[in-house]
Amino acid sequence: MTILGASGALGLGLALRLGQAGVDVVVGSRDPERGRETARRLAERVPAASFEGDGNGPAAERSEMVLVCVPFRNQSETYTNLKEHLREGQIVVDATVPLAAAVSGRATRMVGVWQGSAAQQAAEMVPDGVRVVSALHTVSASTLADLDAPLDEDVLVCGDRRADKRAVAALIARVPGLRPVDCGRLEQARIAESLTALLIGVNARYKTHAGVRLTGLPDELWPER
Amino acid sequence: MTILGASGALGLGLALRLGQAGVDVVVGSRDPERGRETARRLAERVPAASFEGDGNGPAAERSEMVLVCVPFRNQSETYTNLKEHLREGQIVVDATVPLAAAVSGRATRMVGVWQGSAAQQAAEMVPDGVRVVSALHTVSASTLADLDAPLDEDVLVCGDRRADKRAVAALIARVPGLRPVDCGRLEQARIAESLTALLIGVNARYKTHAGVRLTGLPDELWPER
Repeated sequence: MTILGASGALGLGLALRLGQAGVDVVVGSRDPERGRETARRLAERVPAASFEGDGNGPAAERSEMVLVCVPFRNQSETYTNLKEHLREGQIVVDATVPLAAAVSGRATRMVGVWQGSAAQQAAEMVPDGVRVVSALHTVSASTLADLDAPLDEDVLVCGDRRADKRAVAALIARVPGLRPVDCGRLEQARIAESLTALLIGVNARYKTHAGVRLTGLPDELWPER
Repeated sequence: MTILGASGALGLGLALRLGQAGVDVVVGSRDPERGRETARRLAERVPAASFEGDGNGPAAERSEMVLVCVPFRNQSETYTNLKEHLREGQIVVDATVPLAAAVSGRATRMVGVWQGSAAQQAAEMVPDGVRVVSALHTVSASTLADLDAPLDEDVLVCGDRRADKRAVAALIARVPGLRPVDCGRLEQARIAESLTALLIGVNARYKTHAGVRLTGLPDELWPER
């Protein structure tokens, strides 16, 4: 799979954990050399894993699933530049959170996105036939990057096609301690995204890296049907 | 304490659990006779508890803490009618969720509230010196009302004064299985409120009554300082 924005904190942490879980990871950066450098840094942390680096466009072409972990400030530009690289049938996992920090506001506040959420903005910008799933906003980048820290939290997954969500869930579930939960259509992503702003406040208040868990769920969250 | 809207599902469930925890509960309804009838029904379920019923206004006058559990459709009217009954120093706990169901939309969607959240609308409408805390949106009414069902979830508490939040947290913590968490200023209530819409979708999908838990928090969530 491919991770764009892997030199950022969330992308780096996810690349480490997925690599550790045995997933071959291609990391993309605007600057191809920076992508390759990120891959080298990742390989030093998890030598047994396969990391390759490239520019965003070529990196996106190399996988059926592309995880976009860029700051909201760069989200629109990133998708514009991806238009000629994405192809029908690919799944884009968008983890963008429209924090007000993108416009010099507080990280505990959101900016309003006309489409309803960053994920819906992504869905509007990808080429026809590329499917967008929203996930992984609420997982702490610091906890991911600390490979000795146990994970024990849920990942809220939103999207309009159940098969796509299931494919993303299967990937997420390879990371021990992360439990993907089907949280409905892509339009629900605005709620999952905003929860990140609330957690950022909780983290500051309690000096921690909080995650989210939904209680009362059945054991089988992704039944075949 | 007083609960307004206690003949509704959430209010009834909270009244039962708080009564069972030894809290004296006054329940209010628009019709005083209906309030008294609700108190009688509650007393049949938890005979050891103290329940009294009245009209919303007189019921609100009787406690330092007033929990408002009305549907969003009735929220504004409720606060308008409370203006002459609330007094400086009281704490109002607002549990309203602006679900789109209030305007014949889906319960998994929200309507936009000009002030930002139902809690902020409440804060705008109460008399000067009455403090509003937002809490208890995400707790399942059905689980609360089933006194044999164990609770095991967090209550997201938002408000602008820490002392008020702590007072509300102390009340919530009397119910076994509910853990109040300080989730920031009242403006963060929009996130806690919207989480309810997400949980409603999760409940339908997984045929359950989900709650929320924040992971990674310290043991002491309400330190004196």
